Amino acid sequence: MAQDPEYERRVREDFAKQAAMAFLGARMTRVEPGLVEVELPFRAELGQQHGFFHAGLLSTIADSAGGYAGYTLMPARTEVLTVEFKMNLLAPAKGVLAIARGRVVRAGRTLTVCDLEVDVLDGERRKLCARGMQTLICRSQEELQRGGGA
Amino acid sequence: MAQDPEYERRVREDFAKQAAMAFLGARMTRVEPGLVEVELPFRAELGQQHGFFHAGLLSTIADSAGGYAGYTLMPARTEVLTVEFKMNLLAPAKGVLAIARGRVVRAGRTLTVCDLEVDVLDGERRKLCARGMQTLICRSQEELQRGGGA
Amino acid sequence: MAQDPEYERRVREDFAKQAAMAFLGARMTRVEPGLVEVELPFRAELGQQHGFFHAGLLSTIADSAGGYAGYTLMPARTEVLTVEFKMNLLAPAKGVLAIARGRVVRAGRTLTVCDLEVDVLDGERRKLCARGMQTLICRSQEELQRGGGA
Amino acid sequence: MAQDPEYERRVREDFAKQAAMAFLGARMTRVEPGLVEVELPFRAELGQQHGFFHAGLLSTIADSAGGYAGYTLMPARTEVLTVEFKMNLLAPAKGVLAIARGRVVRAGRTLTVCDLEVDVLDGERRKLCARGMQTLICRSQEELQRGGGA
Repeated sequence: MAQDPEYERRVREDFAKQAAMAFLGARMTRVEPGLVEVELPFRAELGQQHGFFHAGLLSTIADSAGGYAGYTLMPARTEVLTVEFKMNLLAPAKGVLAIARGRVVRAGRTLTVCDLEVDVLDGERRKLCARGMQTLICRSQEELQRGGGA
Repeated sequence: MAQDPEYERRVREDFAKQAAMAFLGARMTRVEPGLVEVELPFRAELGQQHGFFHAGLLSTIADSAGGYAGYTLMPARTEVLTVEFKMNLLAPAKGVLAIARGRVVRAGRTLTVCDLEVDVLDGERRKLCARGMQTLICRSQEELQRGGGA
Repeated sequence: MAQDPEYERRVREDFAKQAAMAFLGARMTRVEPGLVEVELPFRAELGQQHGFFHAGLLSTIADSAGGYAGYTLMPARTEVLTVEFKMNLLAPAKGVLAIARGRVVRAGRTLTVCDLEVDVLDGERRKLCARGMQTLICRSQEELQRGGGA
Repeated sequence: MAQDPEYERRVREDFAKQAAMAFLGARMTRVEPGLVEVELPFRAELGQQHGFFHAGLLSTIADSAGGYAGYTLMPARTEVLTVEFKMNLLAPAKGVLAIARGRVVRAGRTLTVCDLEVDVLDGERRKLCARGMQTLICRSQEELQRGGGA
């Protein structure tokens, strides 16, 4: 399904360039055609007022997982940008590890749509805490250099 | 318009409890009835692969600005939770300072809807880089203690 | 899973009161706990400029399917209102029958979140043409009579 | 601001081809660069279970207003498609006339983002009943004929 046999290397290298992911402590775990997971271990700095994961940071790793899930299916020498995303926060994100999963629902030449989910592990329990959707755009490097956004 | 004369103190104290905001370096600037701004100065750790602000982190401060904008209009002894939000990323977030603004569009007894905007300052230029919407729910502390989410 | 043993009758009777559904020619087919399908046969009046289903009308039946999927799980003597919904249009909606499906992802005391999907049948082919998410609120009839929205 | 001096004629002709708009009784009123309004008079067939405007139909005219607002700013010989939209329903849509307004927030070469609003007139009162956002894509007729979606 992936057009680029080197998709995994390309995706992991791009993720490694995102300083924000390292700063948060996020790591990319699964990378398959159309599916990527990003995990984030809890620590106090990532909390909101009750000491649970801050919902914005869960959305950040979900946006990242979805963007790279789309990117696995794009050709080499392209770039992926998030057009928009929407998240529903379903339950308090209390736990020790957040696991964000992006899954491609529709891959087009220009636009890709992903489902986003974030589970949080708390002891034995794994709970779906956020669920969303995301629209991505694929730009060739020529288009990007010619300048400007989409 | 604010029902609680102490709204500003309540909002600023709650923001101060969010460890994630301090970790990112975000600060709450304007607090008015139905309007809150949160600013985030750029530094390398907040970047994506091109060294611009990571879109997820802009969404994080926008979600925070909107949540507290809604909270200014809620009664004392309540809590605010984000039900869902949606962000469109309009332009590359290149610059030295991001300014997120949440503004209440409709304040109900249970649900509040906000507009979200994030401008980025780059030298003299101030550019609208993200725009979104958000739904919030107001919970009394009794409801929250009785347990469970919405 | 349904709290109200009469859920199917309640849901079908409420759907029958929506004049707009009859006007479009939509009919409710499956009704199960947490899952409802609404079908809409094509006719020329439902078309956009290319003679495919108008995307707004597909969103209308999807919103209806999701709202009633949520309503199957709510107690008797309540009402369901859509808080917000979001739809991605994935493919041109060319065909003879649209099938909208709403499925509950999270059912809470106050808020319910659904996945929405619309397939279109064109000859032998069944294609996913739209996909979305929806947030619902459950109101007791007392709350509704006391007046006002959420 | 409009690149095509014939934008108004182009927009009104395209709207006139949407059978669904005539079927609902919707008419296009204002057409300016980046701004379009579509009005829908109430009649019983457009109602939900309480006899107010069905929220899906308000979303339908809002999607249409936004799509054509974007189309005013696109070059001649292109087509506009809705990528996705999101609507928050803010108040019961009780009244005699719905007025949907689409306004361009960001117009790019490929993607355009609009704000959507629907007011409902009830006697002397004009009330904001729905508010949303929409993403559009501009396709040249060559791209569309080459086949396939975005």
